[in-house]
Amino acid sequence: MAENREVSMEKLVSLCKRRGFVYQSSEIYGGLSGAWDYGPLGVELKNRVKDYWWREMTQLHDNIVGLDAAIMMHPRVWEASGHVDNFSDPLVDCKQCKSRFRADQIDLEAPCPVCGNSGTFTEPRDFNLMFATHIGPVKDDGSIVYLRPETAQGIFVNFRNVVQTSRVKIPFGIAQVGKAFRNEVTTKNFIFRTCEFEQMEMQFFVKPGEDDKWFEFWKNERISYYDKLGIRKEKLRFHRHGENELAHYAKDAFDIEYEFPMGWQELEGIHSRTDFDLSRHAEYSGKDLTYLDDDKSRYIPYVIETSAGLTRSVLMVLSDAYEEEELEGGDIRTVLHFHPSLAPVTVAVLPLVKKDGIAEIAQGVASDLREEFAVFYDQSGAIGRRYRRMDEIGTPFCVTIDYDTKEDKTVTLRFRDSMEQVRVPIDELTSRIRAEIKNYRRV
Amino acid sequence: MAENREVSMEKLVSLCKRRGFVYQSSEIYGGLSGAWDYGPLGVELKNRVKDYWWREMTQLHDNIVGLDAAIMMHPRVWEASGHVDNFSDPLVDCKQCKSRFRADQIDLEAPCPVCGNSGTFTEPRDFNLMFATHIGPVKDDGSIVYLRPETAQGIFVNFRNVVQTSRVKIPFGIAQVGKAFRNEVTTKNFIFRTCEFEQMEMQFFVKPGEDDKWFEFWKNERISYYDKLGIRKEKLRFHRHGENELAHYAKDAFDIEYEFPMGWQELEGIHSRTDFDLSRHAEYSGKDLTYLDDDKSRYIPYVIETSAGLTRSVLMVLSDAYEEEELEGGDIRTVLHFHPSLAPVTVAVLPLVKKDGIAEIAQGVASDLREEFAVFYDQSGAIGRRYRRMDEIGTPFCVTIDYDTKEDKTVTLRFRDSMEQVRVPIDELTSRIRAEIKNYRRV
Repeated sequence: MAENREVSMEKLVSLCKRRGFVYQSSEIYGGLSGAWDYGPLGVELKNRVKDYWWREMTQLHDNIVGLDAAIMMHPRVWEASGHVDNFSDPLVDCKQCKSRFRADQIDLEAPCPVCGNSGTFTEPRDFNLMFATHIGPVKDDGSIVYLRPETAQGIFVNFRNVVQTSRVKIPFGIAQVGKAFRNEVTTKNFIFRTCEFEQMEMQFFVKPGEDDKWFEFWKNERISYYDKLGIRKEKLRFHRHGENELAHYAKDAFDIEYEFPMGWQELEGIHSRTDFDLSRHAEYSGKDLTYLDDDKSRYIPYVIETSAGLTRSVLMVLSDAYEEEELEGGDIRTVLHFHPSLAPVTVAVLPLVKKDGIAEIAQGVASDLREEFAVFYDQSGAIGRRYRRMDEIGTPFCVTIDYDTKEDKTVTLRFRDSMEQVRVPIDELTSRIRAEIKNYRRV
Repeated sequence: MAENREVSMEKLVSLCKRRGFVYQSSEIYGGLSGAWDYGPLGVELKNRVKDYWWREMTQLHDNIVGLDAAIMMHPRVWEASGHVDNFSDPLVDCKQCKSRFRADQIDLEAPCPVCGNSGTFTEPRDFNLMFATHIGPVKDDGSIVYLRPETAQGIFVNFRNVVQTSRVKIPFGIAQVGKAFRNEVTTKNFIFRTCEFEQMEMQFFVKPGEDDKWFEFWKNERISYYDKLGIRKEKLRFHRHGENELAHYAKDAFDIEYEFPMGWQELEGIHSRTDFDLSRHAEYSGKDLTYLDDDKSRYIPYVIETSAGLTRSVLMVLSDAYEEEELEGGDIRTVLHFHPSLAPVTVAVLPLVKKDGIAEIAQGVASDLREEFAVFYDQSGAIGRRYRRMDEIGTPFCVTIDYDTKEDKTVTLRFRDSMEQVRVPIDELTSRIRAEIKNYRRV
């Protein structure tokens, strides 16, 4: 069997629309640029990617706790963080046609790409990327709130609360998943860069001087994570930030990059942030954000951050799972090789025929499986076509009920990746599927 | 043992802060009115309430699919829905002291409650509750976007997409959980009414004429749901909307009310919305939103909506779980009787002592349990105090490792509600706890 594991963005966008993973936002009104809605399969996939990260970070690391801060925060937070002053893109206008461009994405010496006139660009001006709105009934400066452009600050401003009310001791981490908003002038590459997106961030607080050790630790943890998810090793790489790429708060920074259909792009950042954030919030709030160590030393902790994009992780999982496989005889089957923990549908239940009580048995099997798994029941169409539909949405297990089931109380369990089939007693089905999920290794 | 199952709001707010359920948002900056952050225990509780609803709605009903639409939608959505014109509160200003009030919450004949002057109120003026911001680099009318004030419209505008790309047939539902924002002049009652909140909404699409039947069905389903969660029956009631309470789109509406510490308040609404929403979106978008039935009839479906507040569900679960129990001897223990599926920590692992290898055995047990459950490991303090701490955060199961464990490989499993203890072999612990969760009934 020949394999084609590369997928173009067009194919991916088309599959996502056709099978209900991702729709253009407000599509019946012509769409809203840079916003996307997740359909029945997409929301399940996104939730499972999020839950997998959350479980990995909080449940499996006993020194990491969770947090969920509000999207709207006190405006002083963004002064302390530097976002009010520095979180901007330089923009230029064409004086002739009024088009607007990012100064760093255009040749300022060349003619305007819209109207073709030369020498019509204004000087670059800074344009802040935070969305602003007003809270309360009066629109004045005092009522401005921003939609958070990152989730990290919600963790820093709650550092003291968490230390005082949980039983955490340094080194420990605080993890958060949530929406963030950036008024990006250029949104592109489908769900990769959007104005509304979701982040999965973890801030790990350590004793000053131990930051380099923990930075290495988290680099290793985070790259191993993608291996556990079955992501192909050759599609992942580290990119270390050069001196001119480092953010103002960063001592060192590595991106984990993935080779998306449009090329290598950042999937996650691991940043050594020193005590920059907590020191700034201590200064701006006037609150004591030091930590008293068991050894009686008192310090502002250093921070190692792991910051992953949820929505771009979904794009990565989709890209990495895609395969067009040429079967014996020349047919092509499209398969999404999702890790079973991520697949929107875990088990499809398919009666071979509807008559002779077969459908009723199948509905009973589906009902039992539904207690533990996401189940899709489908009784119409040729069995081969039903298998193909399940392959295309990445369903790892299909259960087929046939005439033998009535005799011996067994069903056919079919595996998506290998297309192998085995007979399994109905009363062992749940535990068998549970074991297959746990022991899954992508071939 | 005497029981006190009533809790004041002060006690609840205090417990939530002290144990890391809920913090004031941006607290180190003096807070942001009407916004709250969820701490390590609060985020787990909120996630579990959300997951329980999601599983109930999508996994256990095979005719309901999920969706996750963006918070930012095309502004025409809110014209079609009626929010631009009608989603407002009437406000009055005091001309003397410039204070502002909701006209329906103040006696307009009485003196100003702030400055005491009489006859100083302006005429009531409508104040729209939607938060507005601007997308793109230019602030003009064309660039206005609103933060959605409800999640429901995201479902209606995707109705056609879901019908075309999923294999749903009427009757079917679309479920969504997500944030919504309302610029409430009066936020109050802790996390009950806030400017930023989360909704759990399901729109169920039916054939016109079958709406009354399905309205009854969903009333029953939704009240049974709270019973499954172990919520006390006497704290729940239906309230039917009178003619002057009905929203402009509603044919009939029932609230499920809960008796919170501040009195009976709406927890969830079940609304018969007719074809109002889809008809309006068809009209405003110019798109065909009719549905072709298997019986060849074509119609705009009617809608039954179930709309629950996630954040107020969390407050309800906390209120309902709270108990101060007087023990023999006069001690009071504070217990949160969470359903085990909702408890932030499922199992606490407590070595009786640290020495003689007991702590190492306990860490092994914790590590095994962590594969399936949320585990908290605690090795310091008297065992009675450790039990009390776990009672106060609602941990349903405590596992104690002692010297006998070294001999017979059994541990003590202690139940939160009854404080009963049983010995369980280590290798049966996971399946025993799994069964206890499944069969849990609150006493």
